[in-house]
Amino acid sequence: MNALTTYIDKQYLPLASAGVPATDLLVQRGYGIFDYLRVANNKPLFLEDHLDRFYNSAAIMRLDITETRAEVIKIVHQLIEQNNLPYSGIRLIIGGGDSADGYQITAPRLLVLQQPLIAPADKMPLKGIRLASYDFQRQLWEVKTTDYLMAIWLQPWMKSQNADDILYHQAGIVRECPRSNFFMIKDGTLITPATHMLKGITRKNIISIALANKIKIEERAITIEEIKMATEAFISSSTKRITPVCQIDDYILPPINDQSLSFKIFELLREKELH
Amino acid sequence: MNALTTYIDKQYLPLASAGVPATDLLVQRGYGIFDYLRVANNKPLFLEDHLDRFYNSAAIMRLDITETRAEVIKIVHQLIEQNNLPYSGIRLIIGGGDSADGYQITAPRLLVLQQPLIAPADKMPLKGIRLASYDFQRQLWEVKTTDYLMAIWLQPWMKSQNADDILYHQAGIVRECPRSNFFMIKDGTLITPATHMLKGITRKNIISIALANKIKIEERAITIEEIKMATEAFISSSTKRITPVCQIDDYILPPINDQSLSFKIFELLREKELH
Repeated sequence: MNALTTYIDKQYLPLASAGVPATDLLVQRGYGIFDYLRVANNKPLFLEDHLDRFYNSAAIMRLDITETRAEVIKIVHQLIEQNNLPYSGIRLIIGGGDSADGYQITAPRLLVLQQPLIAPADKMPLKGIRLASYDFQRQLWEVKTTDYLMAIWLQPWMKSQNADDILYHQAGIVRECPRSNFFMIKDGTLITPATHMLKGITRKNIISIALANKIKIEERAITIEEIKMATEAFISSSTKRITPVCQIDDYILPPINDQSLSFKIFELLREKELH
Repeated sequence: MNALTTYIDKQYLPLASAGVPATDLLVQRGYGIFDYLRVANNKPLFLEDHLDRFYNSAAIMRLDITETRAEVIKIVHQLIEQNNLPYSGIRLIIGGGDSADGYQITAPRLLVLQQPLIAPADKMPLKGIRLASYDFQRQLWEVKTTDYLMAIWLQPWMKSQNADDILYHQAGIVRECPRSNFFMIKDGTLITPATHMLKGITRKNIISIALANKIKIEERAITIEEIKMATEAFISSSTKRITPVCQIDDYILPPINDQSLSFKIFELLREKELH
């Protein structure tokens, strides 16, 4: 893995030699954003959507990416060609750049890494995961920042709750999981939070699939209590498409099968990847 | 500056060659802590206090520093000797280490940088700074994390408010400034928040000076409203000792002079550094 070609600060280097200078605000102040996309059969999935979000995160954080969008696309394809990892992930990162006073943003360094990744199964696993709810609101929630302090810090707590992932809420209003969006299904309607979370590319694809397939969809506030009225719930992410949820805190959701709406949406997502 | 000797991952390198691997959780997930101390006349000030806090931050974040405390002290003195920057700052940083899954903490890398710093004046400047209040609570507030996302992101807003620094509060209860603690003086009593902020080493020294000099001190909640009853207010930090505050939002504090209590505390802090 350490020999994989990596793009850093205008150069292609083996991953083992790719270091971010200690003077960069990414290192000193955690001031950074990223995006992450899946590569399937050597094709970057939904690259334009990921770049839209990456440039949008950068604009909000006042990071002026010196590479043009066309250059970033070229870099992504260059890594795919050189590394030949047909099923993998690509991570784009930028930070605040070198700063004489350790505070003022300067020209950000772009870092593009390709990493091995196990491709999701062709069919959605029917075994769901358990979520533990935790009261926390991500700062700068509309931006894909590199801030995962709370997510990583909570791992031992999560395990103590016998959970597989964390569901953030604020005063009982559902936000998101640290690396995925939350959906529930009630009376045949797909419901997902509308605000105060990072809008995933898979979330976007699910909404567009729902609209195209006449699946009723609502973007609105969900309370932790309301989840107890759900017939299905799942989380969505670029790496796994959708993963069903079988339990939230002490509440156990009804079992699902290959006739469930979640299962159908997974199929439609998989088809969308092929086009 | 790029030639300054820097300690990184068990090696001494020139700053220009000191890079944090792109695989470290510090780069990928912003999972890191630091501490920062001032060097005066080639002497590291309050080193033991800073190391207490650094190891405490590390313990809370489950970062197992592989260097012993004695080794860290040796590194600090080594940099001071090699760099010969009599008045400077030393920054210790550790992150979550390399992580195969980009999430699990492994052995953290220690980074120790010495940086030029203008020494504070011998006498406290009587010209105060203006603070703009902002509703924000730092996550993991008892830890000196590398998370300055909000502080840096707010800089243009702060300038639009004609302010020199930001005062975080939560629902009107004062917390801290991004890089310093807040104090106010009312009826001759020094008052500072008790919780939900990072406890600075200068804050600790001020409290001990107050106790030794029979200055009344209270650690308790302060509201933004209560500041309007203050005769003096200041912020404290390792780099500046104390800096008087002349304005908070639209409220202008009474002027201070060399008979003010703030001025006296500054003198006592300066004396404490000499011992």
